[in-house]
Amino acid sequence: MEQLVKVAVDAMGGDYAPEEPVKGAVEAVRADERIFVYLVGKKDLIEKELEKYTYPRERIEVVHASEVIETAEPPVNAIRGKKDSSIVVALTLVRKGEADAFVSSGSTGAVLVGGQVLVGRIKGVERAPLAPLIPTAGGASLLIDCGANVDARASHLVQFAQMGSIYMESVMGIKNPRVAIVNIGAEEEKGNALVKETFPLLKECQHINFIGSIEARDIPAGYADVIVCEAFVGNVILKLYEGVGATLISKVKEGMMTTLRSKIGALLVKPALKTTLKAFDASQYGGAPLLGLKGLVVKTHGSSKSMEICNSVLQCIQFKSENISGQIQEHITEV
Amino acid sequence: MEQLVKVAVDAMGGDYAPEEPVKGAVEAVRADERIFVYLVGKKDLIEKELEKYTYPRERIEVVHASEVIETAEPPVNAIRGKKDSSIVVALTLVRKGEADAFVSSGSTGAVLVGGQVLVGRIKGVERAPLAPLIPTAGGASLLIDCGANVDARASHLVQFAQMGSIYMESVMGIKNPRVAIVNIGAEEEKGNALVKETFPLLKECQHINFIGSIEARDIPAGYADVIVCEAFVGNVILKLYEGVGATLISKVKEGMMTTLRSKIGALLVKPALKTTLKAFDASQYGGAPLLGLKGLVVKTHGSSKSMEICNSVLQCIQFKSENISGQIQEHITEV
Repeated sequence: MEQLVKVAVDAMGGDYAPEEPVKGAVEAVRADERIFVYLVGKKDLIEKELEKYTYPRERIEVVHASEVIETAEPPVNAIRGKKDSSIVVALTLVRKGEADAFVSSGSTGAVLVGGQVLVGRIKGVERAPLAPLIPTAGGASLLIDCGANVDARASHLVQFAQMGSIYMESVMGIKNPRVAIVNIGAEEEKGNALVKETFPLLKECQHINFIGSIEARDIPAGYADVIVCEAFVGNVILKLYEGVGATLISKVKEGMMTTLRSKIGALLVKPALKTTLKAFDASQYGGAPLLGLKGLVVKTHGSSKSMEICNSVLQCIQFKSENISGQIQEHITEV
Repeated sequence: MEQLVKVAVDAMGGDYAPEEPVKGAVEAVRADERIFVYLVGKKDLIEKELEKYTYPRERIEVVHASEVIETAEPPVNAIRGKKDSSIVVALTLVRKGEADAFVSSGSTGAVLVGGQVLVGRIKGVERAPLAPLIPTAGGASLLIDCGANVDARASHLVQFAQMGSIYMESVMGIKNPRVAIVNIGAEEEKGNALVKETFPLLKECQHINFIGSIEARDIPAGYADVIVCEAFVGNVILKLYEGVGATLISKVKEGMMTTLRSKIGALLVKPALKTTLKAFDASQYGGAPLLGLKGLVVKTHGSSKSMEICNSVLQCIQFKSENISGQIQEHITEV
């Protein structure tokens, strides 16, 4: 029998805990028999949720953790202080090799800090970037770094480009992925100090297909597969993506409801529109991996429902079978 | 008779020069009798365009300039080298006080450099930011700085907040405009080094209504009137706004065309939808002013049609009558 992929799921993280993480875990073990889930958190709450479902019981194990890290808590203190929190207990399973991966919708800060401190970075990796997939006209691009390391240096960005390439090629199956750096103009002399320093380093970098600068305007069109940027900029891109999308779609709906004629039209248009807009919905891609760690750590939206958690758990299969951490260790260069 | 507002329009700038700038100038003098336009550029080309229209001839004057600055030229060299370019000649009219304002769809870099070098900053202003209005769910917000000064310092951002407030209150008529700084979280301790340094300075700043951080997700919803950020981030926001909007709208159209049923619906929905989406179109607001200069300099999109140019020219009336430059000189503080 094929080896199981063991994923620790934070049952206490996110706006809909424990209901949605538990449901997501159940959906994942049902969907793929290679998946084994540790549901980490308050045992009584988790078991109460689990009673609602039928599922292969030998592939879900509840691991008790008595504490919960709240979103507002300062991450470093929380990781140090709450040794029996779901995040610390689950990450410790990954560190010990008992779990291959950790999936959480909980505090981003605590997951990032905990991942680096408890699981640890691969030798040679200077910073571990958060790298979500964002929807584009043609599919999806990897946005790296998206909030883990503000005020990063040029050498960090070069490693982000390398790690992002490996991820897109091995997990997403994109051959020779196009790597671009976010810039405010297409020419090489454009940019802020960080981009000007990073650009020539990326040009020289082996094993990546660097295509130059990308302006933010061209990101949704899908001109690059790996979009390299500093974390502050990446976070702005990710959140503005969501914000413009949400506002525009509500404007479209509002527009359709203004006249009787348009209301009738809306009824006819709705099913087809739903399908197309779904392709532009970030949650279908599951969570964002924190790359460069010795085990896989995946952060999902705080507002994740079971589908996003299930997808994030399933994504761990590919990550393990392609040995992403091993590939990163092998190919990363220190600048 | 009321004093004329004299606007120098770059007849050679942008993708549709000289047709659209000339047309925009004609529309502006027709729309408001307080407007006088200097059309600056190649005389023969401009006059050939003008022949197409009837308009009050005493309020358009052609000023010959034999050279054109191309978008790809390095801005500093272009401003220094092409003394008889439309941008240099027009900005010189502003410097001499012969024109109140300059409107151009030409090279952003050359307009920014030329504005600072030829027109000059108001005493006390450290940097002149580019400040476009961006559409939001409820109206429009001012995004400042949007590309003029990358790697700005905290003291610059504080002045941007002050200038932006004056603009939104006096030109857009928004009482006590809400000022926010772009950040990657709502809490005061979040952010990169620049934001952390700027935040307390904005809290102490007099004469502005500082409401704290704004996450990029909340910008389209219109949570703030003046959105302060460093130019690299501002440029990313502006361009991503356009990019996500364009991609989503094309997805919506594509979605409507997938089935026969949805095609019929699309016909019914179209007119109402057009009206709503127009409210989310940046070009209705005219161009972006470069604030803090002794005269008004307005940069419009390279792809501007006559409507955007006309709106930009008309916006100069309010700028002059409210004496924005005088107000900035009076209220700006040096940190």
